[in-house]
Amino acid sequence: MNTSIPAEGLQLRSLVKDSGELELSLQRVPVPVPAADEVVVRVEATPINPSDIGLLFGAADLSTLVVTGSGENGVATARISPAAMKGMAGRLGQSMPVGNEGAGTVVAAGSGAAAQALLGRTVAVLGGAMYSQFRTVKAEACLPLPAGTTAADGASCFVNPLTALGMVETMRREGHTALVHTAAASNLGQMLNRICLADGVGLVNVVRKPEQESLLREQGAKHVVSSASPGFVEELTQALVATGATIAFDALGGGPLAGQILGAMEAAINRSAREYSRYGSTTLKQVYLYGGLDTRPTEFVRNFGMTWAMGGWLMFPFLQKIGAEATQALKNRVAAELKTTFASHYTRTVSLAGALQAEAIAEYGRRATATKVLIDPSR
Amino acid sequence: MNTSIPAEGLQLRSLVKDSGELELSLQRVPVPVPAADEVVVRVEATPINPSDIGLLFGAADLSTLVVTGSGENGVATARISPAAMKGMAGRLGQSMPVGNEGAGTVVAAGSGAAAQALLGRTVAVLGGAMYSQFRTVKAEACLPLPAGTTAADGASCFVNPLTALGMVETMRREGHTALVHTAAASNLGQMLNRICLADGVGLVNVVRKPEQESLLREQGAKHVVSSASPGFVEELTQALVATGATIAFDALGGGPLAGQILGAMEAAINRSAREYSRYGSTTLKQVYLYGGLDTRPTEFVRNFGMTWAMGGWLMFPFLQKIGAEATQALKNRVAAELKTTFASHYTRTVSLAGALQAEAIAEYGRRATATKVLIDPSR
Repeated sequence: MNTSIPAEGLQLRSLVKDSGELELSLQRVPVPVPAADEVVVRVEATPINPSDIGLLFGAADLSTLVVTGSGENGVATARISPAAMKGMAGRLGQSMPVGNEGAGTVVAAGSGAAAQALLGRTVAVLGGAMYSQFRTVKAEACLPLPAGTTAADGASCFVNPLTALGMVETMRREGHTALVHTAAASNLGQMLNRICLADGVGLVNVVRKPEQESLLREQGAKHVVSSASPGFVEELTQALVATGATIAFDALGGGPLAGQILGAMEAAINRSAREYSRYGSTTLKQVYLYGGLDTRPTEFVRNFGMTWAMGGWLMFPFLQKIGAEATQALKNRVAAELKTTFASHYTRTVSLAGALQAEAIAEYGRRATATKVLIDPSR
Repeated sequence: MNTSIPAEGLQLRSLVKDSGELELSLQRVPVPVPAADEVVVRVEATPINPSDIGLLFGAADLSTLVVTGSGENGVATARISPAAMKGMAGRLGQSMPVGNEGAGTVVAAGSGAAAQALLGRTVAVLGGAMYSQFRTVKAEACLPLPAGTTAADGASCFVNPLTALGMVETMRREGHTALVHTAAASNLGQMLNRICLADGVGLVNVVRKPEQESLLREQGAKHVVSSASPGFVEELTQALVATGATIAFDALGGGPLAGQILGAMEAAINRSAREYSRYGSTTLKQVYLYGGLDTRPTEFVRNFGMTWAMGGWLMFPFLQKIGAEATQALKNRVAAELKTTFASHYTRTVSLAGALQAEAIAEYGRRATATKVLIDPSR
């Protein structure tokens, strides 16, 4: 032990009650004294990712949000419909910490050499429960950030970067040569665009609003199509002909989009087909649903033959599948390109208490492509 | 050459015209003289499988069916809607032969030993264009039927048997231990039930009508659920708990069924789950759509976590994937159990001309589970 650490710190908690109410609050929790191989990180920057929002709000209806109290006594509550409560059975009554990733300063370290080496360093952590003032974690879970990198620079260095790299890696490993991405103007989408430009990989960016097209084109994107365009399916098909993309990663999940992509892939392939097969082309067309921005049911007309697949995709199981060595290679690339390829942008920074205020929730609760909120628990 | 063969024979053809009309007719086509490694088969039994019906009728609306002429001059026509014509572009103006499989007598053979050995034998052929009086095919494409087996016994010895065996083989190769089948009272479904009973594999049979339940139960099926039951999803879930099935083969394709199966699989898995994960169980839940009996769009609510996959499945690509040796092993089993496990039943036998009559089309065009028509082109 090198430094005195506080006995307690604030931590954001999400609780689903039997009564059908979601409650967000701050709790004072003990800061564990670090073991030999552990460090205590003062968290200074932790993003609210779409992957955090699911745990944060569960199935709550945010139009019913009420905030009472203020500062560290602020409590935000919202109703969950009886139908939606069915999906919440597994977490009923459990006060759950939130926050997949973040960065901060190592303010205390256990006696081990690896822990000691981190003392005073700015590190990024993929540790869970990061919406906390202090986190005691294994030294090996910390990624020391290069000199000149702030906690805010490194706050989002795991989830989005490894997801974007994982998509390109999945494309390669499954034998495709170009890919489609939806909700493509998101922080993740912009990152994926930079990776594909750097690696010379064909990318079809699908956006939902015309103004998002120019944002991506200004960043060098070659193929951007808007699902709001009356000619969407034909424009998508042309981009698929141009790139040869036969795999897509869809952040929307619901609605007709995933099926439209498969249909356009089949149409693109058939523009160069020679003979009729009523089972369609024999080229595998794959769409992975990795998000649920569109909460409607998924619906598709089967106009793309029989050689197709649709499925869920998540970054963590993908990394488990490729193993520790391949994962480390991806992490090394992130660290090396943190301020360029993997830079994230935030529309607002709030304290832990600020994250419970109605104005902030209205911003990050929208799940809109262009907004991203950062929490600084040290404020 | 051992026997004189006719110069021509009748062949059933399906033609989609520019005008938006489907036309079924009989054509006189030459019977090619067999090369050294070929034989001429007089076709005596060839089934109308669901997989033939797609090619036979294309996207035609059978409520508009009109039959003119009679005997070998009979012509059946039906309208195809302008919207449905889009999917017909690849076969416009091409008079297409139909019929995946059949059986008959070898009436002529080329000079090669393999061909000569088949002369006079009753053989099954997976050759395409089987709705013909005579077919000249490679000797190696023929499966000689055991003594005492008629052409009718062997007519359906490829498509349904290899599809049913392919499903069980897919289940095993992809790491599942039990399976779900829909439209389970079909000829194929009854066959799959017999295979699973013989092999001790758990099978959940999903039927659409209550009377089909008893048909399968009388044949020893342990788990039969009807999608017409008000308690369908719960009954399905209980059968999934009992069997541990995590892979399904869905003949319907459209509507909510595929998604309901994934949801019930997830619910079944979670009945024994210990901790909450908002990404759902980590057990892969797979549904293959291998048919399109339900022509509605496919629609699902994503209430089954992120570890799931849906895709097309076809017997031929599956056999290609497993290779010649594994395929031969499946064929050998079919030949050995042709009158038991792999027996097919027909509700009507017609001549080629009879297949074009309105009454016959009304029967096989319904795509109903309980009816199956056999064509005997030698009549």
